[in-house]
Amino acid sequence: MTSDRLRDQVGFILEIDKLKGVVRRTYLVDGSRRENSAEHSWHVAVMAAVLAEHADEPVDAGRVARMLLVHDVVEVDAGDTFVYDPAGSESKAERERAAADRIFGLLPPDQGGALRALWEEFEAGSTPDARFAAALDRMMPVLHNLHTGGRAWRENGVTADMVLARNRRIAEGSRALWEYLRGEIEKAVASGHLAPPRD
Amino acid sequence: MTSDRLRDQVGFILEIDKLKGVVRRTYLVDGSRRENSAEHSWHVAVMAAVLAEHADEPVDAGRVARMLLVHDVVEVDAGDTFVYDPAGSESKAERERAAADRIFGLLPPDQGGALRALWEEFEAGSTPDARFAAALDRMMPVLHNLHTGGRAWRENGVTADMVLARNRRIAEGSRALWEYLRGEIEKAVASGHLAPPRD
Repeated sequence: MTSDRLRDQVGFILEIDKLKGVVRRTYLVDGSRRENSAEHSWHVAVMAAVLAEHADEPVDAGRVARMLLVHDVVEVDAGDTFVYDPAGSESKAERERAAADRIFGLLPPDQGGALRALWEEFEAGSTPDARFAAALDRMMPVLHNLHTGGRAWRENGVTADMVLARNRRIAEGSRALWEYLRGEIEKAVASGHLAPPRD
Repeated sequence: MTSDRLRDQVGFILEIDKLKGVVRRTYLVDGSRRENSAEHSWHVAVMAAVLAEHADEPVDAGRVARMLLVHDVVEVDAGDTFVYDPAGSESKAERERAAADRIFGLLPPDQGGALRALWEEFEAGSTPDARFAAALDRMMPVLHNLHTGGRAWRENGVTADMVLARNRRIAEGSRALWEYLRGEIEKAVASGHLAPPRD
């Protein structure tokens, strides 16, 4: 029945509303508050439409956007893991797999399976679409830090070597975007917004 | 030069960060706060991926999602207009046109033009994609009200006749979604979450 199917779909849509309450480390550009994972997901999906031309391998911009729209829904259960937190990152995979079982499982099986496969592709980074999506997902908080005087970096003791080590994989999706960011990161160090490498 | 182009694209991406500060009337499902237009845009774009099968005419779900990702960016300048506010709605078109000139104008002309055309198509409702996108954009706040005990409806003196009059155009994009919502709206009246029609 269409109506049972629709009821399950609406259940999923209402459940993921909770992503609006998952707060990330990064601040909005105006500095007023930290951003949440739902608005972040919107922002990176728009980026996919705007920056697709900078991908090194051919990508399907619409597919990259869809991947980014659902890339964080597991955080409804698993929470946001700060990228510079090695302990959190260790248990992340397991927590997120359980979350994916439950959340994508709310949908009719054909749809839940398709969105879950898209999420797994993103996590594995095994396709051009996934590598470019991951590049955008890494690029966004760097941009936010660059334009808030490095606020989340400074609050969390993040130094230039950590930023470079974490984000150099952006080049796997787009060398042009990584070249641009590297230049901006250097400027942030020069202007004191990002601490230089610890020896 | 790629770098000038990229600089303009990044300028647009940073500018639309402000959409995260545009607050709507609708409350999150958990009732903790009102939602903003950026997280709303994410939510309706996910809906496009999940509910596309209910469109009455064939639609391109990826294109509908892209349309919904940018459908509210003009609110960065023009603010959110409450749908049950006739005075605000009168001046809305002009304010939003000026906003579209400025905001899409930040992008390289080819891209700004393409996204602006997508926004205009959404506003005009002249294609199956636009009618379905508008149906989802109308459906979302109804769902939020239904699952917060009609909170924004009650706070703003909205009655069942207003909800039905405003939202019956959902049927122009999807009769199935409108049928479902009509049933839920009736239940909300029966349970006292939505005031009956004023005679």
